[in-house]
Amino acid sequence: MKKEFIGRVTIPTDVDVVPETLELLKRWGADAIRDCDGTDYPEELRNVDARVYSTYYTTRKDNAWANANPDEIQQMYIMTPFYTAVKDELSIHLMNHLHTDLLKVNDRDDIRRWWEVIDRTTGQPVPVSSWEYSSQTGDVIIHGAKEFHDYTVSFLAYIMWDPVHMYNAVTNGWTDFEKQITFDVRQPKTHKFSMDRLRKYLEANPHVDVIRYTTFFHQFTLIFDELAREKYVDWYGYSASVSPYILEQFEKEAGYPFRPEFIIDQGYMNNNYRIPSKEFLDFQAFQRREVAKLAKEMVDITHEYGKEAMMFLGDHWIGTEPFMDEFKTIGLDAVVGSVGNGCTLRLISDIEGVDYTEGRLLPYFFPDTFHEGGDPVKEAKINWVTARRAILRKPIDRIGYGGYLKLALQFPEFISYVEDVCSEFRTLYDNIKGTTPYCIKTVAVLNCWGKARAWGNHMVHHAIYHKQNYSYAGIIEALSGAPFDVKFISFDDIRENPEILNDIDVILNVGDGDTAYTGGDNWTDETIITAVKRFIYNGGGFIGVGEPAAHQHEGHFFQLATVMGVEKETGFTLNVDKYNWEQHDHFIKEDCTRDIDFGEGKKNIYALDGTRILVQRDKEVQMAVNEFGQGRCVYLSGLPYSFENSRILYRSIIWSSHDEDNLYRWFSSNFNAEVHAYVKNGKYCVVNNTYEPQHTTIYKGDGSSFELDLDANEIIWYEI
Amino acid sequence: MKKEFIGRVTIPTDVDVVPETLELLKRWGADAIRDCDGTDYPEELRNVDARVYSTYYTTRKDNAWANANPDEIQQMYIMTPFYTAVKDELSIHLMNHLHTDLLKVNDRDDIRRWWEVIDRTTGQPVPVSSWEYSSQTGDVIIHGAKEFHDYTVSFLAYIMWDPVHMYNAVTNGWTDFEKQITFDVRQPKTHKFSMDRLRKYLEANPHVDVIRYTTFFHQFTLIFDELAREKYVDWYGYSASVSPYILEQFEKEAGYPFRPEFIIDQGYMNNNYRIPSKEFLDFQAFQRREVAKLAKEMVDITHEYGKEAMMFLGDHWIGTEPFMDEFKTIGLDAVVGSVGNGCTLRLISDIEGVDYTEGRLLPYFFPDTFHEGGDPVKEAKINWVTARRAILRKPIDRIGYGGYLKLALQFPEFISYVEDVCSEFRTLYDNIKGTTPYCIKTVAVLNCWGKARAWGNHMVHHAIYHKQNYSYAGIIEALSGAPFDVKFISFDDIRENPEILNDIDVILNVGDGDTAYTGGDNWTDETIITAVKRFIYNGGGFIGVGEPAAHQHEGHFFQLATVMGVEKETGFTLNVDKYNWEQHDHFIKEDCTRDIDFGEGKKNIYALDGTRILVQRDKEVQMAVNEFGQGRCVYLSGLPYSFENSRILYRSIIWSSHDEDNLYRWFSSNFNAEVHAYVKNGKYCVVNNTYEPQHTTIYKGDGSSFELDLDANEIIWYEI
Repeated sequence: MKKEFIGRVTIPTDVDVVPETLELLKRWGADAIRDCDGTDYPEELRNVDARVYSTYYTTRKDNAWANANPDEIQQMYIMTPFYTAVKDELSIHLMNHLHTDLLKVNDRDDIRRWWEVIDRTTGQPVPVSSWEYSSQTGDVIIHGAKEFHDYTVSFLAYIMWDPVHMYNAVTNGWTDFEKQITFDVRQPKTHKFSMDRLRKYLEANPHVDVIRYTTFFHQFTLIFDELAREKYVDWYGYSASVSPYILEQFEKEAGYPFRPEFIIDQGYMNNNYRIPSKEFLDFQAFQRREVAKLAKEMVDITHEYGKEAMMFLGDHWIGTEPFMDEFKTIGLDAVVGSVGNGCTLRLISDIEGVDYTEGRLLPYFFPDTFHEGGDPVKEAKINWVTARRAILRKPIDRIGYGGYLKLALQFPEFISYVEDVCSEFRTLYDNIKGTTPYCIKTVAVLNCWGKARAWGNHMVHHAIYHKQNYSYAGIIEALSGAPFDVKFISFDDIRENPEILNDIDVILNVGDGDTAYTGGDNWTDETIITAVKRFIYNGGGFIGVGEPAAHQHEGHFFQLATVMGVEKETGFTLNVDKYNWEQHDHFIKEDCTRDIDFGEGKKNIYALDGTRILVQRDKEVQMAVNEFGQGRCVYLSGLPYSFENSRILYRSIIWSSHDEDNLYRWFSSNFNAEVHAYVKNGKYCVVNNTYEPQHTTIYKGDGSSFELDLDANEIIWYEI
Repeated sequence: MKKEFIGRVTIPTDVDVVPETLELLKRWGADAIRDCDGTDYPEELRNVDARVYSTYYTTRKDNAWANANPDEIQQMYIMTPFYTAVKDELSIHLMNHLHTDLLKVNDRDDIRRWWEVIDRTTGQPVPVSSWEYSSQTGDVIIHGAKEFHDYTVSFLAYIMWDPVHMYNAVTNGWTDFEKQITFDVRQPKTHKFSMDRLRKYLEANPHVDVIRYTTFFHQFTLIFDELAREKYVDWYGYSASVSPYILEQFEKEAGYPFRPEFIIDQGYMNNNYRIPSKEFLDFQAFQRREVAKLAKEMVDITHEYGKEAMMFLGDHWIGTEPFMDEFKTIGLDAVVGSVGNGCTLRLISDIEGVDYTEGRLLPYFFPDTFHEGGDPVKEAKINWVTARRAILRKPIDRIGYGGYLKLALQFPEFISYVEDVCSEFRTLYDNIKGTTPYCIKTVAVLNCWGKARAWGNHMVHHAIYHKQNYSYAGIIEALSGAPFDVKFISFDDIRENPEILNDIDVILNVGDGDTAYTGGDNWTDETIITAVKRFIYNGGGFIGVGEPAAHQHEGHFFQLATVMGVEKETGFTLNVDKYNWEQHDHFIKEDCTRDIDFGEGKKNIYALDGTRILVQRDKEVQMAVNEFGQGRCVYLSGLPYSFENSRILYRSIIWSSHDEDNLYRWFSSNFNAEVHAYVKNGKYCVVNNTYEPQHTTIYKGDGSSFELDLDANEIIWYEI
């Protein structure tokens, strides 16, 4: 086997599949082996001719320590549900609807300092003298409650069972095991203990080449209810990164007192849809700095022992946002992450400042897929073809799999398909690594988060579908594999320097009104609204999806209504006659083969006079274009990811940046296929993203074209 | 013909149908004859044996006066569209998109006092020193405009053509006529002139028995664009009731300076969907008092001449809201209004303090219906059956028709059908007048307007359909003919005296969030939210439709979420797992024959744990019930008017007031028929609301029942 045909692949193993592991190393050309949560690395493979990854849990798998140091167990802010007072005393049982194996109320620390009882009717905290907590009953009792006011208690709880361990145990039906308690490496005793523990581990495992950290210190927010069902999940949640010890440090740095409400935020737990407060942004920045500092200690120790430090982008990854400045200071060698779609691929592959990135492809070798009647090949195909679009824009350096190898081995077709994937990945990587693929336009996704949530927009928990987000997430997914330089910018970025817009061809603003993804009252900030209007007026493109720039203010819900030419009827303009309902042909729709799928779409959108409506349904505008000065705007009510919709977005970007004349450059007439050019390497490829053969006309960079038939999923490489 | 079989009917006439008028008087048993806008009263009928109504226009039909007193022509506040400054000077042509025959800029009065140029980006007025108006160009020029800020001009314009006259002229294609200018009776010269003019008219027309005022002084807001198309219409609009003369009086009374923005209100013209400001409510109250005072002068003069004063509820009716206290002081004898549906019937029939009310039934005898191929009988049937439901709850005292009699005479079937209607109305009236029909429950519709807009909720221009209001207006329409005592209460009513809720069985809150119909931030007022929660907790019913009690505040969009058991997913709770999706059978749905029609319905509504979902579609809750304390809540996403939906509302009210056991009292098993009982008179009737025969089981007040077959539209009267 030629050199380029081995490597770049990681496989899982376990004690019960040693010979099979060795066989698979050869078949898949793998050059690294890993263990997983719930598997053990076999003694026999310690000296195998492959790099060995070892998962390392900084925060668990040592209940002796946790039990000996209960004050340094990880903590989480929890808000109770709303309870209505019906007399002047109200009793609230804190652990209602929470799994008691998961959480334990922390009344060790000063509850009057760290807890908050809030009158949610007024939004005011209840004076600490007016409530008490009984550790016997587990209830907070409010005295002098106001009748028919709602109350909540924000309290600290110890995380007595690592939520991911709990998830794995519940999902896989584990029995007869110890529930792993999470300890907090950022606390003083555990800090020292953890560094020693790491050294011991490194010393005891000389066969390991790569320490795969899971991740560092703080779990994203994940809560289970009394029935062990997931109750709350936020892959970006900071609720479980708190403790009085940490919060006192924060107070010192911030210069103002901490309030639980910075995290709790009316019970919404400050998720990514909430417009972030200054205090929450301060807290996140503080956490990033502190996590980076401590993680660097571990990475330095790892290097001391001649091993590489790899971070798993997931689980306990809070504070390590990889696109933020603090991340680079950690000194990691590599990042690995699970690849659910194009966005999650780019979440990994776009990371700078590490030697390599690795994508854990799906499906995991778990019984939910690898059971009799399961179709792992289908899942693998979908995952690979979806990820490949994004890999072709910005490749990860390695791929790999996880789970129980024994399960996968029972599906020979799967083993064979992955062999092809590994080979195809290596070819692809060799062809494109080191170049920037040809980018036709620079587009910027504008929201409250900017680069902090690059590629993570409208993501609640990795690539999980929600009825309320797929119509918006589709835009980001389409971009993940499209020939554009994609930037994620925040309103604060514009406030700091409006000139950042000078380098951008098209701005996108995507989501529902008054969420962080569209910006809410940021649009009433003169600096923001004038910068964006100036950008458009001077020739920039603007694509608004859903309720772009929406916040009720001074005569409009859409603050760019007069620019985009569309507005939402909220009742306030029912009195205004609306005559513009005619639907027009347009460049943007020219490749459409059927009624456009806007996903959930939007109700009650109407067009102002002069706006060109591309699609209206039952007198609700779903798609329209408008010009403002030299600039062009496109309104879309939603755009779930599909190949056809990806083409609609592509044409929207080309049109809004006035480049219709150059559409037929590195272009496939059939939108089921795509062309990616790597001019510096003198290569280009055509990929069939579907599971059926496709015919298309391919246009090269000079506009010349040829006809092409592609097999299902095929990728064909050409020299330019 | 017996006495009870004549009377209570008014017919139109014209000079070209004298013998036919006399014939029709007999056939329809009519006892009054009227003229119309565009018809003349025939000399030959001056001494007819019927009462004579004469339309009287207080504000027009005397262009000589108007032209001689241009300073006292009626005025209107207009706001220009939003214009974006792209350099430091911005020019705005005021009359853009306005019909120049309709409006003329008033630059006679001090424009720096009465106009406002507003920077809509900041919401701040532009200093008067920074703008100027050129009467030559008709432009306002703003100096020192801020780049990419939006600007509007709020200005006064003279109404040079009465908007209703313009509408009639355009609709009926009138040619060769004088455009009637509207003069303002509230101005000093015109005031005096108008009283003299009225006296002259009364003296010159001794044959007239009833002066039908159209109406008094101020047209509802009605604007036409440059193509003579309706541009803006608000049947409740106060924009055309202004002049510096009036506004100076208002300033004196209110004790604070007037601002155009009180009326303009960000360009929304303070329509009924806007949550009214204190200043706007002050202005409305001022106008009601002043209009009542001046109207009383005219009514008194009318009485002096031995004639009756009748008010037409429409056209220039601003300031005469008939459910407000000021109305009674006018001293009117009668009110007449057009009957578009049950709500508009109740708008008239519920008026107190007049001797009689009269409903102008549809269709008007206009060419839009009475043309070859037209089906006026069908329109008349629909109108009558729709109105009859409401008449049976609260009768008008008379019915009548309007338009060109000559047109109606060409449709003998129509003449015959109306003969039946007149007869049926007289029977009905005799059976029920003087009693209050049996009311099963007292329900209160709660919004920002209360009784000021009783029966006018979700009404933009009379009974006109809007895609955004029919799903809500359906509730009010259902109530207009239902056996409930219906109150309309405002948040201010509750603030003044929360005990008003003690007399109510069920509260309804209907509409979209953050509109005046649901209440917006009123729900963050402790007094309101606790009063409503207390009411429910103690056993009251609550029916929320659409986005009830919705305003983003402290962890909820629906401020009664924990009480109603439903909430809207706005993105902020995507992180929260939702397990409650099971649909249940329920008392409320028991008569449903098909998938419930929620009209536009609502997206993204989910149920909290414990809530009983009655209908969810594609994981969006459309109907649910929940209990809170002793109280019961029903959520409906929308409910357009239909007989089936009317039954759903009926059952919702019965269930939410805990009265399921008494459902079968004065009840028709078939919802296409209804039962109305008049216990005091010892009568009850069964009506078939459909155009087909119906079979039903009728339950009497004691629960006994009988089977019944009804003819199409039939009404059958019984003794109790």
